[in-house]
Amino acid sequence: MREEGGPVNASETRQFDAVDIIRTKRDRGELSAGQIDWVIDAYTRGAVADEQMSALAMAVVLNGMSRPEISRWTEAMVRSGTRMDWTGVGRPTTDKHSTGGVGDKITLPLAPTVAACGAAVPQLSGRGLGHTGGTLDKFESIPGWRASLSGTEMFNVVRDVGAVVCAATDDLAPADKRLYALRDVTATVESIPLIASSIMSKKIAEGTGALVLDVKVGSGAFMKDVESASELARTMVDLGTDAGVRTAALLTNMQTPLGLAVGNALEVREALEVLDGGGPDDVVELTVALGREMLAAAGISGKDPADALRDGSAMDVWRAMIAAQGGAPDAPLPSARETHTVEAPASGIVASLDAYAIGLASWRLGAGRSRKEDAVQAAAGVQMHAKPGALVRGGEPLLTLHTDEPERFERALQALDGAFTITPPDSRPDLLPLIIDRVGE
Amino acid sequence: MREEGGPVNASETRQFDAVDIIRTKRDRGELSAGQIDWVIDAYTRGAVADEQMSALAMAVVLNGMSRPEISRWTEAMVRSGTRMDWTGVGRPTTDKHSTGGVGDKITLPLAPTVAACGAAVPQLSGRGLGHTGGTLDKFESIPGWRASLSGTEMFNVVRDVGAVVCAATDDLAPADKRLYALRDVTATVESIPLIASSIMSKKIAEGTGALVLDVKVGSGAFMKDVESASELARTMVDLGTDAGVRTAALLTNMQTPLGLAVGNALEVREALEVLDGGGPDDVVELTVALGREMLAAAGISGKDPADALRDGSAMDVWRAMIAAQGGAPDAPLPSARETHTVEAPASGIVASLDAYAIGLASWRLGAGRSRKEDAVQAAAGVQMHAKPGALVRGGEPLLTLHTDEPERFERALQALDGAFTITPPDSRPDLLPLIIDRVGE
Repeated sequence: MREEGGPVNASETRQFDAVDIIRTKRDRGELSAGQIDWVIDAYTRGAVADEQMSALAMAVVLNGMSRPEISRWTEAMVRSGTRMDWTGVGRPTTDKHSTGGVGDKITLPLAPTVAACGAAVPQLSGRGLGHTGGTLDKFESIPGWRASLSGTEMFNVVRDVGAVVCAATDDLAPADKRLYALRDVTATVESIPLIASSIMSKKIAEGTGALVLDVKVGSGAFMKDVESASELARTMVDLGTDAGVRTAALLTNMQTPLGLAVGNALEVREALEVLDGGGPDDVVELTVALGREMLAAAGISGKDPADALRDGSAMDVWRAMIAAQGGAPDAPLPSARETHTVEAPASGIVASLDAYAIGLASWRLGAGRSRKEDAVQAAAGVQMHAKPGALVRGGEPLLTLHTDEPERFERALQALDGAFTITPPDSRPDLLPLIIDRVGE
Repeated sequence: MREEGGPVNASETRQFDAVDIIRTKRDRGELSAGQIDWVIDAYTRGAVADEQMSALAMAVVLNGMSRPEISRWTEAMVRSGTRMDWTGVGRPTTDKHSTGGVGDKITLPLAPTVAACGAAVPQLSGRGLGHTGGTLDKFESIPGWRASLSGTEMFNVVRDVGAVVCAATDDLAPADKRLYALRDVTATVESIPLIASSIMSKKIAEGTGALVLDVKVGSGAFMKDVESASELARTMVDLGTDAGVRTAALLTNMQTPLGLAVGNALEVREALEVLDGGGPDDVVELTVALGREMLAAAGISGKDPADALRDGSAMDVWRAMIAAQGGAPDAPLPSARETHTVEAPASGIVASLDAYAIGLASWRLGAGRSRKEDAVQAAAGVQMHAKPGALVRGGEPLLTLHTDEPERFERALQALDGAFTITPPDSRPDLLPLIIDRVGE
């Protein structure tokens, strides 16, 4: 698209008008490439006002966009800033993006594992907002670790270590940054074209050559049903393909949290177990499955992420990666000052353990934030002792709640009201598989 | 509605959130009375931002509003400012509002005619934007006449003379003022709920006890077809009724201009002919029809506007009304420095004379403005010499264009390309009646 479209020149821009563009989408018309290029550029420059962009966004939420429109919209957001270039790192680049879930610490074992298999992983990541945690918040529970790197530092870490996880710079898709904040206050978040173009503009601008999307489905995810998750996955895979990024997606289960730990330091501990060759089955399974997809998309064969976890090479990369960003890989992780145990009310099979409820409890314990400027507690969160399908005995611990502020227990426990069900020991709960579907090019 | 709803108190307002309200309308829900009161009040105060209101406006354009929602929305806009009170003027108040057309100078003869029949006419009016002229612009072509009056001055003119036509004060529906400017730049003008509530909030705030709406239909009007004009008329009549204003509407023809003059001073001249007992048939017919509706709505019987035009009493009120606002009723009106004549290309019947084209030509000659801050030419405009249905001879003058700036003729003539058709002398063009329909309570 970039080559075909080319930059918008000054004489062309005079043909365009914000009101015409809004009216076109309001009346269910298709926006032209020139209109899209102009409106995104003018919005970034401030020549299109917030009130005009929010009216356009609402028209997109209600009337949609076609594949060519979404593709062009995404490319225009990429072009609003700098597209990063990893040519000199000496290995093929590949990345993973998750649409966000509860207990989703997969990036932590995955990035070093894939790097140990010979790929370069340049992952620009974000902080959490609401009930899902943010990858940077998890890393920041490691003493000394630093999220903000300059472009040169990022490049050097990827070249020397094979993987970097850090904060995105300000010139990465600045149009998306402005639009994302606007959508948040104007009820224009819930739109597959706008969600897909927001995610993909950042990932395309990041400069990765290959990309695997982990599209979460279920109570703890943004997409509550398989149908809308499939549509989002298909839209993003198409956008990646249109932009020359080899892209695939897995649809994965977010009815229940991933692993047994939810919360920043709690999740780092679990990731370390996985890197050490252990850890919960679901976290290992998903790390390996996403790792294989990332390597395949990067054109690397003959290496298996499962081996890298088993032989310690993934852990070696982890240690180098943490140290390269100022972190102390051997320093003890913070522990919460207070804990509270929730016991199984009866013996039986755990039939459900709701991801949204656990995420909300963890958020209320202090692991998440309500506003961008809030701080998070490193040690807060929920440790699970059993997952759906497991047999428990009445009175055994089911969940342990962690926080530095015991006054938070009450509202966290309210969030857990109805969060799990226990059925007779001979029952067989009907559970969704971890990996529900795959969407390829 | 006012009595039932009551003012929103401080503790209630904490329940409301702009994003929830936008989301409700986006998802085709019905806004509660409390939500509407809160969002209009918060927008007026600046606590709801322009980008939030424009997203809500776009959701209203696409998903509509129910009658209770529109009614409450209108009342909330009225309550954003002061509602005027004419109790002391000693006569029943009645007013007319036109949705805007080309050559629509009806207010000029109508207000004094109805006042001459014993009603009080407190008409707060606006300036023109685009191809339709504004009533204040027309009055301002009268030497010395002043549009801006204080509240006390308005009251005194109505009490002493019976009619006032002047600019609205800043505290008349300020929420509408802000929203109207926002809709203009966000392509959210075209919505019957928003158009109806905008017009009616100003008219209800004006404090008139009775109101007659002249809803224009055709190329020169905002509503191009009878169906949408009927819907707008019905919505506004319902809003007036809900607010305790006795309201009726006429749907009238705007395929062709009203009368033979378009332009500020040109229209004042035509209005004076009507007040003098002459003038074009359609202007007289509509003045009398609207006047009868206004008197009926005000509960005045036994008086006929046709008599007031014939016996000079309407002209007496006109002269007093002009003088009361500093105008010189006998001063000569300005004339254009340049004229250009368009001749009939052939003999035959004028089958059509397009209102939009004539309005656009007049605008381009200098009678209208593109931006609020532009000045208008008092003398510019188009004088017609024949109307649809009339027989003309080839080479006879059909239109005379007036302007102070002859360089404007070229673009005005371009606007007139295809503006009229002449059919064989024995043909009978199919013409819409002047008054198409009536909508009552």
